[in-house]
Amino acid sequence: MAPITNGRILFNAVPEDYPVPGKTTVYDTTETIDLENVPLNGGLLIKVLILSVDPYMRGRLRAPEVKSYMVSFALGKPLSGGGIGVVLRSEFAGVEAGQHVGGVLQHQEYVVAPSLAMLEVIEKDPKLDWSVYIGAAGMPGKTAFMGWREYSRAKKGEVVYVSTGAGPVGAMVIQIAKQDGLKVIASAGTDEKVEFMKEIGADVAFNYKTTDVREVLEKEGPIDIFWDNVGGSTLDAAMEFANMHSRFIECGQISGYNSGYQPMKVLTLMIFKMMSFHGFLVTFLLPKYTDAFKAEVVPKIVSGEFKYTEDVTRGLDKLGDALRALLVGTNTGKGVVVVAHE
Amino acid sequence: MAPITNGRILFNAVPEDYPVPGKTTVYDTTETIDLENVPLNGGLLIKVLILSVDPYMRGRLRAPEVKSYMVSFALGKPLSGGGIGVVLRSEFAGVEAGQHVGGVLQHQEYVVAPSLAMLEVIEKDPKLDWSVYIGAAGMPGKTAFMGWREYSRAKKGEVVYVSTGAGPVGAMVIQIAKQDGLKVIASAGTDEKVEFMKEIGADVAFNYKTTDVREVLEKEGPIDIFWDNVGGSTLDAAMEFANMHSRFIECGQISGYNSGYQPMKVLTLMIFKMMSFHGFLVTFLLPKYTDAFKAEVVPKIVSGEFKYTEDVTRGLDKLGDALRALLVGTNTGKGVVVVAHE
Repeated sequence: MAPITNGRILFNAVPEDYPVPGKTTVYDTTETIDLENVPLNGGLLIKVLILSVDPYMRGRLRAPEVKSYMVSFALGKPLSGGGIGVVLRSEFAGVEAGQHVGGVLQHQEYVVAPSLAMLEVIEKDPKLDWSVYIGAAGMPGKTAFMGWREYSRAKKGEVVYVSTGAGPVGAMVIQIAKQDGLKVIASAGTDEKVEFMKEIGADVAFNYKTTDVREVLEKEGPIDIFWDNVGGSTLDAAMEFANMHSRFIECGQISGYNSGYQPMKVLTLMIFKMMSFHGFLVTFLLPKYTDAFKAEVVPKIVSGEFKYTEDVTRGLDKLGDALRALLVGTNTGKGVVVVAHE
Repeated sequence: MAPITNGRILFNAVPEDYPVPGKTTVYDTTETIDLENVPLNGGLLIKVLILSVDPYMRGRLRAPEVKSYMVSFALGKPLSGGGIGVVLRSEFAGVEAGQHVGGVLQHQEYVVAPSLAMLEVIEKDPKLDWSVYIGAAGMPGKTAFMGWREYSRAKKGEVVYVSTGAGPVGAMVIQIAKQDGLKVIASAGTDEKVEFMKEIGADVAFNYKTTDVREVLEKEGPIDIFWDNVGGSTLDAAMEFANMHSRFIECGQISGYNSGYQPMKVLTLMIFKMMSFHGFLVTFLLPKYTDAFKAEVVPKIVSGEFKYTEDVTRGLDKLGDALRALLVGTNTGKGVVVVAHE
């Protein structure tokens, strides 16, 4: 078989504000791949089916000399992130053609992976689509369940405020918190997202672009738990209307990812209210909670008890648009890019 | 006996920046008291011996309409705070003239207290001065010991950075951390304070006014624990050079007490480094740790193993100056105002 095009999304220039498709990232078709003959050197050849766009990726779109916890994407090279693919050929022990792998994949149509270091073989429940395994049943769902279990110290009757409650992490937090008997306040940036949050059980759901978060929290709080996905002025508001001994689960601070600067007005309240803040990355909680996640959460996704939404973009060439929509907030639900069908 | 003057420190005007003695607080001598005949109504008459000036008092010098966790001082009324006095007369069961009481006292020479609600009878070790009971053996010492015990999760060989390490809380933290086998980095604002921090065991002590905290932490860190008394840019620096899974014990953020605004540059690091922040007020830890404090800390103060410094001001009329010096940072050691001798 002759070589075919291997489309890729390349990191082209450091964005000053939001990433701009065609400028900060570009879709490149100059590379080809011979699927039958490309050397694997003991690794595997993967056809990428699904790629995930996630807020943390903004932090990797930076100049390499800027230090940060996560390694930056390399200029001129493909982005990478969560994804799922099907194995076309394998020289790697224990993996066979036709199996599916999930984990970190380069943003290209075909990937030669040297090993399973960043990937695992996954099996799908027949009732779920593969895309669910990068969403409710994947990293975002695990983030919600494991962060909640590790840090919330939730008690029935307490009040939690969930920011970005219509996103894949926030929506799962809402549903787990309701299951635990809490009153749930949740916010998002469109009326459509507000409706979804009500459908999945939020007691109070509001559009933060048209309703002042401080007014809502003053009326419906004080809060015992804040699930923070946004940081900045929302974090300030949550601190202002937090109870004594409240727990702030710091999952994300998307408001600071572009500017990297957060003018905090009431940070000292953490002292007077004896608050605790827990920043976390789900990676470090996987060993402790993966079994519980599979036993307690996935069956509820399969049965339909736990709901989710997806924002599906078709075609790798549109990944830059999906990422931008996610960061700007115009998407709805888990950002999924369908690269190919099997 | 004829009525005598009962000098008082009154809250006169809300300070815009640092408090100004004679303007925001005034020493008032217009009130008199008849020590033999003043009605006690079942309470006690206390002669104030020692008063404490502490950073948190700045937060109470505000307009009553400004909401905050701690109640504001009342304009035209005396300040109040930690102190020790001797009982002159008592109608309160279980307390006799000649006993000493410690706790919250109004800032005046003589106080009629309705009960022991905010006070407790205290006994002094003969080797210690009463002033130690508002310092190393009092609230600041308890703050250090109890906050460390509750939140530090300290392990031998870890690195802690203690801000305001020459203050009564920080100095005790340094000594407890050394006892636990940690490497201690400590900062203060004068060379004299730096010398004191070295004397009590700090491995690295520096003057933050002449040495860049970031340079020190880059060289001597990364840190596993930050004992925060200052907040603001120092907190940012500590976050930048913190280890994964580091613990930030939020005891004070004095840099924000005047402005109430903290421009944080790297707050998102709390997520990527899986950091935890614990704000606390010692009041809530007293039930759990008071016995341990008396058993483990006070004997070491008596034996001289745990050291302390005091900045003694004589005369209630100078209390405003002592408070200002504390907030500006020109004092050295625990701020003690000697109001009277027995």
